[in-house]
Amino acid sequence: MTTTQEPSATQPMPDFHAGDFLTDRVAQVGSATCVGLDPVVERLPPSLAPAAGCEARVAADAIERFSVGVIEAVSADAAAVKIQAACFERFGADGYAAMGRVVSAARGAGLAVVLDFKRGDIGISAEHYAASARFAGAHWTTVSAYLGSDGMLPFLDAGCGAFALVRTSNPSGDALQSLRLADGRTVAEAVADLVSRLGARSIGRSGFSTLGAVVGATKRDEIASLRARLPHAVFLVPGYGAQGGTADDVRACFTSGGRGALITASRSVIYPAQEAGRPWQASIRDAARRFADEIRSIAAR
Amino acid sequence: MTTTQEPSATQPMPDFHAGDFLTDRVAQVGSATCVGLDPVVERLPPSLAPAAGCEARVAADAIERFSVGVIEAVSADAAAVKIQAACFERFGADGYAAMGRVVSAARGAGLAVVLDFKRGDIGISAEHYAASARFAGAHWTTVSAYLGSDGMLPFLDAGCGAFALVRTSNPSGDALQSLRLADGRTVAEAVADLVSRLGARSIGRSGFSTLGAVVGATKRDEIASLRARLPHAVFLVPGYGAQGGTADDVRACFTSGGRGALITASRSVIYPAQEAGRPWQASIRDAARRFADEIRSIAAR
Repeated sequence: MTTTQEPSATQPMPDFHAGDFLTDRVAQVGSATCVGLDPVVERLPPSLAPAAGCEARVAADAIERFSVGVIEAVSADAAAVKIQAACFERFGADGYAAMGRVVSAARGAGLAVVLDFKRGDIGISAEHYAASARFAGAHWTTVSAYLGSDGMLPFLDAGCGAFALVRTSNPSGDALQSLRLADGRTVAEAVADLVSRLGARSIGRSGFSTLGAVVGATKRDEIASLRARLPHAVFLVPGYGAQGGTADDVRACFTSGGRGALITASRSVIYPAQEAGRPWQASIRDAARRFADEIRSIAAR
Repeated sequence: MTTTQEPSATQPMPDFHAGDFLTDRVAQVGSATCVGLDPVVERLPPSLAPAAGCEARVAADAIERFSVGVIEAVSADAAAVKIQAACFERFGADGYAAMGRVVSAARGAGLAVVLDFKRGDIGISAEHYAASARFAGAHWTTVSAYLGSDGMLPFLDAGCGAFALVRTSNPSGDALQSLRLADGRTVAEAVADLVSRLGARSIGRSGFSTLGAVVGATKRDEIASLRARLPHAVFLVPGYGAQGGTADDVRACFTSGGRGALITASRSVIYPAQEAGRPWQASIRDAARRFADEIRSIAAR
């Protein structure tokens, strides 16, 4: 197995290709799963839960310890973790600092790291955000496509993978994303075409670009069209399981050979049903393994 | 002059209304201007510039000191400051902590504070981002509209003003925002209609909602249509001056009586031409005053 060079937070990384790196990592672990780290203090294991109304510093420390524990538990079975920046930023600078350490822990465990921060700015500001993701050590980010190439290319130019929001899994995304254009496409399809065009400049030896696409598993009628429009984009796929996406929906997200998709689950893995007396990390490990087995069987068919 | 109660970072603020607060502040200072704080180390006054290649902590400290200096210089002439989160986040947790102190300094100087962080997430994650803005002390934020109501309403529910990205000032925004729908509207107009509908729930005594709109001054042919579609939205208007927006373009952003728009300028105010021997803050104060006078004369016509 050839693996691409890892990016460094402080040095240029000319040989790092986010698409190739992720494809290699999926092949290495034998599973296209991504565990979503969306930690909230209200749902922590009792042994980690801070007192109600604690200071931000205490809360940030608690979600950091939980996140590091989840990373240890899932690193053998998941290809990647998706770190929800909002969960950390709500605790201000303490949370932001904790987020950086969680990214480091995930890298240290060999996981591909998606920083799910959904930034959407242009030009120099987009460059700053790409630098912040590089600084933290993330391999991939999530970005808005609404501002066009000015909001996406700075990430690619900085050597950072970026999943553009093409079709989100939430119900109210339809209000804009499902609108029909005069040329017959939906808005989401137009975004897909834009992402495909921009991503063509950075396709690696794996056949995948450093510009990927967020495509919700709940949008079953649209996945095939989006997959056809984006043959070189890795799909980051939320919405499986808890949100209603099925195995068939997920299967359509992969390219031939079960490649090109990263299926994410958050709550079903990081907050599993607890058996009395069993360590919380063991329950999470089991849930991550079940999730990987499920997705493996879907992708292989 | 009745002023609304200021929000607190740690307590509920039932009497704070971001639209009324901003409208009052504009009336109080007699100018609808917003100074964009986009600090980069390469452009700091020589007395503040850190050594090339310095650590993130040192760079963050330098842009913080500059930002606080700008706030002191512009607080008599600007209604608001718009703090570009990307400039701070590129320096990691040190930058994020500095950003919080800059928000505090701006509040302390009596300015309305727009945290320009362009987040775009849904549900609980959007709630987290709203909490992070509240935690920092911002009165207003900027948010993506691409995810629909799930991405915007949590901000309003948290008592935070939010400018939704409707029509951005950058050229590549046209790739999506200018597309024509089957019903004749552009994508940007469809977003405007969505923002108008969602914002109707939170219109204050000023006649303005806590859901505003980012509308670039460079999009002159579209401003009148967007203003008509968004009668209760404050427009946050980038692109005046350096980016090519003219006085006529800006005038169309206001409602009758010169209300409902906040015109932003960044580089032309915070990096003015320096006269030898003159303190850098004096030059910035002059630039902020010229900018306020220009916008005052435009809005009054």
